[in-house]
Amino acid sequence: MYTLFFSPNACSLASHIALAESGLPYEIKWVKFADKEQQSEAYLKINPKGRVPALATDRGVITESVAILAFIAQAAPEAKLAPLDDPFLFGKMQAFNAYIASTVHVAYAHWRRGYRWADNQSSFDDMAAKAPKVFHDCFQVIEDSLLEGPYVLGETYSVADAYLYLMTDWLANMKLDRADFPKVNAHYERVRQRPAVQRAIAEQAAATAV
Amino acid sequence: MYTLFFSPNACSLASHIALAESGLPYEIKWVKFADKEQQSEAYLKINPKGRVPALATDRGVITESVAILAFIAQAAPEAKLAPLDDPFLFGKMQAFNAYIASTVHVAYAHWRRGYRWADNQSSFDDMAAKAPKVFHDCFQVIEDSLLEGPYVLGETYSVADAYLYLMTDWLANMKLDRADFPKVNAHYERVRQRPAVQRAIAEQAAATAV
Repeated sequence: MYTLFFSPNACSLASHIALAESGLPYEIKWVKFADKEQQSEAYLKINPKGRVPALATDRGVITESVAILAFIAQAAPEAKLAPLDDPFLFGKMQAFNAYIASTVHVAYAHWRRGYRWADNQSSFDDMAAKAPKVFHDCFQVIEDSLLEGPYVLGETYSVADAYLYLMTDWLANMKLDRADFPKVNAHYERVRQRPAVQRAIAEQAAATAV
Repeated sequence: MYTLFFSPNACSLASHIALAESGLPYEIKWVKFADKEQQSEAYLKINPKGRVPALATDRGVITESVAILAFIAQAAPEAKLAPLDDPFLFGKMQAFNAYIASTVHVAYAHWRRGYRWADNQSSFDDMAAKAPKVFHDCFQVIEDSLLEGPYVLGETYSVADAYLYLMTDWLANMKLDRADFPKVNAHYERVRQRPAVQRAIAEQAAATAV
């Protein structure tokens, strides 16, 4: 049994979708950011970085979306969620996921979490004002150069598609229009229809219903 | 033949060390940031993100340190640069590398590259002032929780050690003291003595000598 520690609609949704695709047995545990539970002593024992996602396995915890997504694909090879037998294609997938984690998600984080990197309100305001443009620029790179289509790696679905789906979903939070990116938008609609995606969304809604 | 596009002492040094460890045939190409070569039309065809590292292979280009490091380990399994047969340990290694890429390196980037996320000089100054503290905090997490010792994964050297070595080397740029982190400091001294590390450093010096 795998346990995914998540926050609703956070980047942990990508790992949740991958679990739902994998056929592996799993449960999800809500880490309540409103109660600062990610900084609680109990949670810091699970993930000393105080973030989600974290995936508890019978051998210990794996953190970071890039690592969890690859791990799920490797733990369930029959689900064919990554090109496991082709180091080059696997590297392409990991490069895509690493770009999402280290550049695209980071661009998004400056919108509301500028306090991680600065101390003054004027800096937070400056970052929040620029963040939609930086995030938009990232999606332009994805649209023009990284998304082969119909899936990230071309004809074959992989965990990178769950990660891109989640990130694309965040465009609307910033009042950005998915339709500015036709390939990304078509990818989003395609992936949203997958049963695993609908299952993960429903499971998060059920787990967080008051 | 593999071609690594690098900038001296940038994060591309980790991939360079991994290549030197791997036994794979490679050459290195200096991307001259002083001439804004990373934004040139020619380089953007190699890496549309305009960053280093990029690794050209006979099947195409792989970008992002996290992906390149794993790719090199998979392309040279006999060099034993990653726990390739153990998805859990591989996941731990990828989690470490993803933390470096998406949090530690990002913390460092706010020191001199605040313009990526803000527009005003006052914000750049604010970020530059805070960056050493944030970077220090990241190393505290590595020291206390992530570095098993003597290597990142314990007894076995992996590409994660090259990445940590490079990041540790940057502490001095910010006038931070490696000795604040005894395990990290011992790791740095240990890894620095590896012939592959000395070879990569010497190759970068030779390639960039005027």
